[in-house]
Amino acid sequence: MNYQIKDIGLADEGAKKVEWAYREMPVLDILRKKYKNSKPFAGKKIAACLHVTTETANLITTFRDAGAQVYLCASNPLSTSDEVAAYLAREGIFVFAQRGEDSKSYWDNIRRCIESEPDLTIDDGADLTVTLHKEYPRLADKVVGGCEETTTGVHRIEALNKEKLLKFPFIAVNNAMTKHFFDNRYGTGQSTLDGIIRATNILFAGKRVVVAGYGWCGKGVSMRAKGMGARVIVTEVEPVRALEAIMDGFDVMPMDEAAKIGDIFITVTGNCNVIRFDHILKMKDGAILANSGHFNVEIEVNKMEEQKVSKRRIRHELDEYTFKDGKKVFLVGEGRLVNLAAAEGHPSSVMDMSFANQFLSSLYLLNNKIEIGVYPVPIEIDREIARLKIESMGMSIDTLSEEQEKYMKSW
Amino acid sequence: MNYQIKDIGLADEGAKKVEWAYREMPVLDILRKKYKNSKPFAGKKIAACLHVTTETANLITTFRDAGAQVYLCASNPLSTSDEVAAYLAREGIFVFAQRGEDSKSYWDNIRRCIESEPDLTIDDGADLTVTLHKEYPRLADKVVGGCEETTTGVHRIEALNKEKLLKFPFIAVNNAMTKHFFDNRYGTGQSTLDGIIRATNILFAGKRVVVAGYGWCGKGVSMRAKGMGARVIVTEVEPVRALEAIMDGFDVMPMDEAAKIGDIFITVTGNCNVIRFDHILKMKDGAILANSGHFNVEIEVNKMEEQKVSKRRIRHELDEYTFKDGKKVFLVGEGRLVNLAAAEGHPSSVMDMSFANQFLSSLYLLNNKIEIGVYPVPIEIDREIARLKIESMGMSIDTLSEEQEKYMKSW
Amino acid sequence: MNYQIKDIGLADEGAKKVEWAYREMPVLDILRKKYKNSKPFAGKKIAACLHVTTETANLITTFRDAGAQVYLCASNPLSTSDEVAAYLAREGIFVFAQRGEDSKSYWDNIRRCIESEPDLTIDDGADLTVTLHKEYPRLADKVVGGCEETTTGVHRIEALNKEKLLKFPFIAVNNAMTKHFFDNRYGTGQSTLDGIIRATNILFAGKRVVVAGYGWCGKGVSMRAKGMGARVIVTEVEPVRALEAIMDGFDVMPMDEAAKIGDIFITVTGNCNVIRFDHILKMKDGAILANSGHFNVEIEVNKMEEQKVSKRRIRHELDEYTFKDGKKVFLVGEGRLVNLAAAEGHPSSVMDMSFANQFLSSLYLLNNKIEIGVYPVPIEIDREIARLKIESMGMSIDTLSEEQEKYMKSW
Amino acid sequence: MNYQIKDIGLADEGAKKVEWAYREMPVLDILRKKYKNSKPFAGKKIAACLHVTTETANLITTFRDAGAQVYLCASNPLSTSDEVAAYLAREGIFVFAQRGEDSKSYWDNIRRCIESEPDLTIDDGADLTVTLHKEYPRLADKVVGGCEETTTGVHRIEALNKEKLLKFPFIAVNNAMTKHFFDNRYGTGQSTLDGIIRATNILFAGKRVVVAGYGWCGKGVSMRAKGMGARVIVTEVEPVRALEAIMDGFDVMPMDEAAKIGDIFITVTGNCNVIRFDHILKMKDGAILANSGHFNVEIEVNKMEEQKVSKRRIRHELDEYTFKDGKKVFLVGEGRLVNLAAAEGHPSSVMDMSFANQFLSSLYLLNNKIEIGVYPVPIEIDREIARLKIESMGMSIDTLSEEQEKYMKSW
Repeated sequence: MNYQIKDIGLADEGAKKVEWAYREMPVLDILRKKYKNSKPFAGKKIAACLHVTTETANLITTFRDAGAQVYLCASNPLSTSDEVAAYLAREGIFVFAQRGEDSKSYWDNIRRCIESEPDLTIDDGADLTVTLHKEYPRLADKVVGGCEETTTGVHRIEALNKEKLLKFPFIAVNNAMTKHFFDNRYGTGQSTLDGIIRATNILFAGKRVVVAGYGWCGKGVSMRAKGMGARVIVTEVEPVRALEAIMDGFDVMPMDEAAKIGDIFITVTGNCNVIRFDHILKMKDGAILANSGHFNVEIEVNKMEEQKVSKRRIRHELDEYTFKDGKKVFLVGEGRLVNLAAAEGHPSSVMDMSFANQFLSSLYLLNNKIEIGVYPVPIEIDREIARLKIESMGMSIDTLSEEQEKYMKSW
Repeated sequence: MNYQIKDIGLADEGAKKVEWAYREMPVLDILRKKYKNSKPFAGKKIAACLHVTTETANLITTFRDAGAQVYLCASNPLSTSDEVAAYLAREGIFVFAQRGEDSKSYWDNIRRCIESEPDLTIDDGADLTVTLHKEYPRLADKVVGGCEETTTGVHRIEALNKEKLLKFPFIAVNNAMTKHFFDNRYGTGQSTLDGIIRATNILFAGKRVVVAGYGWCGKGVSMRAKGMGARVIVTEVEPVRALEAIMDGFDVMPMDEAAKIGDIFITVTGNCNVIRFDHILKMKDGAILANSGHFNVEIEVNKMEEQKVSKRRIRHELDEYTFKDGKKVFLVGEGRLVNLAAAEGHPSSVMDMSFANQFLSSLYLLNNKIEIGVYPVPIEIDREIARLKIESMGMSIDTLSEEQEKYMKSW
Repeated sequence: MNYQIKDIGLADEGAKKVEWAYREMPVLDILRKKYKNSKPFAGKKIAACLHVTTETANLITTFRDAGAQVYLCASNPLSTSDEVAAYLAREGIFVFAQRGEDSKSYWDNIRRCIESEPDLTIDDGADLTVTLHKEYPRLADKVVGGCEETTTGVHRIEALNKEKLLKFPFIAVNNAMTKHFFDNRYGTGQSTLDGIIRATNILFAGKRVVVAGYGWCGKGVSMRAKGMGARVIVTEVEPVRALEAIMDGFDVMPMDEAAKIGDIFITVTGNCNVIRFDHILKMKDGAILANSGHFNVEIEVNKMEEQKVSKRRIRHELDEYTFKDGKKVFLVGEGRLVNLAAAEGHPSSVMDMSFANQFLSSLYLLNNKIEIGVYPVPIEIDREIARLKIESMGMSIDTLSEEQEKYMKSW
Repeated sequence: MNYQIKDIGLADEGAKKVEWAYREMPVLDILRKKYKNSKPFAGKKIAACLHVTTETANLITTFRDAGAQVYLCASNPLSTSDEVAAYLAREGIFVFAQRGEDSKSYWDNIRRCIESEPDLTIDDGADLTVTLHKEYPRLADKVVGGCEETTTGVHRIEALNKEKLLKFPFIAVNNAMTKHFFDNRYGTGQSTLDGIIRATNILFAGKRVVVAGYGWCGKGVSMRAKGMGARVIVTEVEPVRALEAIMDGFDVMPMDEAAKIGDIFITVTGNCNVIRFDHILKMKDGAILANSGHFNVEIEVNKMEEQKVSKRRIRHELDEYTFKDGKKVFLVGEGRLVNLAAAEGHPSSVMDMSFANQFLSSLYLLNNKIEIGVYPVPIEIDREIARLKIESMGMSIDTLSEEQEKYMKSW
């Protein structure tokens, strides 16, 4: 059987969604057109474990058009779009994914992909990679190389490498500038606000928004909240970033103080318990809490659950917690990553670049014999993607003259 | 019968929504608390013809708590929330409104309100006012005064007045600074972007957004689009506003030129055919069109319908039009006011001030014997509302010292 | 003698400065070219009492090229540029002005201009107008009309009018949108910061800047301070403006609180004692104070002088005051209008529009028989100037179609 | 003789200037207070070759108060302030520097400092370092370590190291985040605009400003030009940076296109001939050119000189060039670094952090036996400086809890 999906009848619906996303993925489109005749992946199998979304579908069919045979399973059973899976199945992709599949199916689907005996792997969290290394060492030996999308996955793969267990070279796609510079700042920035607005319909202008964390994501969220007229307070633990926030015109203070005056709180630190229950006790009645960090550990939700007097669902993805003193606070999307929980994740436009990195990095692995290890995306790929994105916008930039090249080297 | 609604069983759901909106309506809350004991409207009947929304519900119960007996009908059959109507009915309000009611029911419901023999009227578009004057002249004589929310309604009432037919004084609430300054700029600004993002999920950063019109609404939309990282082009017909747009850092050009380079087009002029079909022919493939003006006449949609080769619904409130040359453009919400069609209209926070104007203007009409005519909201009401809004945010401002008062007067 | 100036030898230096300013005055240049052949002012005399600056020089020679014979005196003895006066004298203008001239000379020079028996007057503060009415009633009778640049002057002229003493019609140029909208926001905004930076060389990024007043000037200063990375606090007495400041993303609080946390204070209210000595006592050591309002009454400088323990000039236009408790604060430009005291006043680009208003309003007075009274600049002049400014930038805008004109009128 | 300066009588004037700068250098002040009792540099000699400015004076006296004996010479004869030198001499510093000193004196003064037999060196461009290594190898052997402020200097020192000639370890201060992150973006950003405004007095609002280069400096300049209301165009050769500029809302295009539409051009690339003469030929009459890169090679000034028909000095630091076709362009500060040529260089506030890096890095070299080589500033110094800066602003930030520290390590 070529696929394991919910309902092939959803393919039409899926096609429409995939097509819409594709309009915002011009870099993939350029790559597709560039490689559809030469078919550099001809005769190669790719096992991909990714969120089964509209953008992924476009990556997968780009690989297909460039000659590859692709096997796709889900990197998270909750993020699968059954319509997209149906569309891909109809397109002849070997897709094994159903929204809400149980743990057994999840791992079985990963194994199905592995058993295709892939030449290349693409992973998002390293579940496929780890399974391949543990359960199918013989097949792992055969693999030319792999790409990993997330920081978490890279950590796991580096651990394998440290123990000398890694069997083929990896490229850590997350490190590409055209990935994290852009999806963190511009993608997370916009979609975090989008999630909160969809969940609450509140006006940002004049509100005091507390952004915990001033990394790339925090910079994006702060910039966009300011752009919507909010008065932004940043909290940080790293002094250089905190100072940057001040110089960018934001107020900076400890969460303990910010808790007392904020209207909306957004965590985006990558750390745990950034908003603790004792902070919540200091908040104004009606405060709104949202998390835009990867894991739902940044707000002390478990303690909110323990200590609450009552809880109601007020709107889609918005819960009201009442505590002993009568105070109510509102939690968006249960404290999970707000742009996925309450909006539609990153706009396709930023996924375009992430996935162009996947595509070109896979090609690089295929064409270059490199040693086992974990590597960054080569800078020339990063630059090529940025160049294609600019070109797709109908814009162009300067190039160095010979004289300038010489000047830059002349110390 | 005290009400004419869809289903009283929806009252619980309505209560929750009304309550959520109320959290963003602190000025109404202050007024409610201030007047619930003195009950200045005691023994008075108010006939209100308004959009039956969560915010309206809060206005109505505030009047009720201040002593009034309120009769409510819908100012537009499509904007009625049946849950809200149910909630109000359960609260003892005389409410006559059903979503999607036919024309006969619509006018019957207006008549039901009129037949309550009101002391005061509140209108949104002047349908109640005109009916009252035409069909119930005797009852009109009895009315102390009326408030009208919209510019359109004010025009109709002024026409009555010109013909010497007006029978009681009116306050034009739309002219209040705490209404149009704030809902136009901050309300329309945010909710227009919200509507487009919900309909399309596109990234604004780096996009070229063309905003047609640089009035208060256009200023708001431009400011927020810039705040989301877009490169904004403004088109205008009025040179002073156009120059203001330039000085605010925006590019300004005729629509004919902007048509060729824009990615997203937003009309907000109050005029018709601002984006004509011949502009659309010049646009890039994939251009997105949305209207944020009151009426759906700003984009030449009828001609798009005539000239299209095909049309598909791509997403909720997003239609793809294909034309002869194969070009596709995308229209949000059928060209209707985008923040209502594709999002949730103005955030409650701005309606708070509009409705506080309704409340205090009604009180003013009750307490002051004024002659027949159409009046602006008294400046002291405007200032009082701004003061209460600031107070509700936990902030305060300076007051003039005696010395300063004297200085200001001393020419 | 045709002129009364310091030194005709300064004419070359003056010419260069006037020419530089002229590069930023393209609207005047268009008007000059338009009217130099038709010479609508031929045979007419104009008496002008203005700041004798480079921009004024360009206005005067434009009048000259349009046929007028111009008599110029200073509206303030301290703002005269002797180089500019020399340049004008050499150009054949009847100019009577010397920097630092004493009171007698000042009034004598005004009288010299009046004695030319002018057809039109141009005034900046109404000293010429008042003298003309009081001392030369017979000559006043002969005047066709006058323009007044300032609000203060308009007040004085309106007082004359109220007492039925006014002898010819006036246009209040300050009310033109192309004047106050632009010089207040964009001119004052930039030049206020420029003055403070020249006087102190401090970095604005991260500083807490307190802007007192959120009128057009205050909006401009706040916007530019934010644009330089400052964290801006606004103080206001008018609640609607204060709320606007909040919605624009600024913190708002009473001066009493702001005093404790600000780094830089800028008054721009038009009122007196906005920063009182008791506020200064609460400030942080090292606070910097500047006034950008018209008169030097906004900061309680006289009390600072009284209460100081010592005072030193630290830099050009920067004084250090030390008080009893050892605290030091720094006052820019002695509390006088900071963009004139410590920088170069409004950039020529904004004066271009103010003076185009003077020119076209004078022409309007000449061509239209209007009754005695004080009038705003006709809206068509305002629009014409904005249109010319846009044209001079190489830009253009839309015009209403017939269909749109009709739609706008169709209620 | 303890000093070689212009005139000790200038010391009072110098003191006042140094004191003013010190108000903006609170980190140095904290360090001074912290180390003035323990005197960690007691018995040590420091030879410093730096721009002899007010900020440098504060660094030097901080070293002095921490126990060091300091010998100071100029790193550039044109940047010496004779008043500052006089002040330092009076304070007992061994200072050898005169504004405009000839080449022989320049090198003699460097040798005087070297002959003090220093334990530590501080350099800005590496002239002292290279002289020490070439002419005084025996004394070089004795040195514990050195700090170098500039990228250029670091290149020269690394060259020495490559040839195995380096005799003691170096810390490259420029790489500190608290240096280049802040002086590049916030310092260069503000002071570049300041320089252009002082030289031209033009209004930025509405102007088209072309910024060549979107590195840290270019980001700062673009951000501030936008903050003043300009419409900013960025040119770049590096695609990732160019894309960042687009996503930040700026227009991006090749210089060849930008040349035709810009009003003001600012180069800040670090490369040569970024604005070539053939670009200038395409510019609008009246274009203004300024360079904010380190060297005056970014604008092709030599060709402007060759091809000009005439040249005039229009204002202080502003030259008008006329070319064959009659077109005029204006060059600020002869194409030299505009914030130094036409304004006062970086505000003291950013130099505070650069020099705190010098101080703490010197202390680090003294206290830690490190091998010969060129090292970055230790991250803990960077963080300490940021922390002190924040503290000096009266602000504070969060610290990681134990639980959070554990979470960050737990993969």
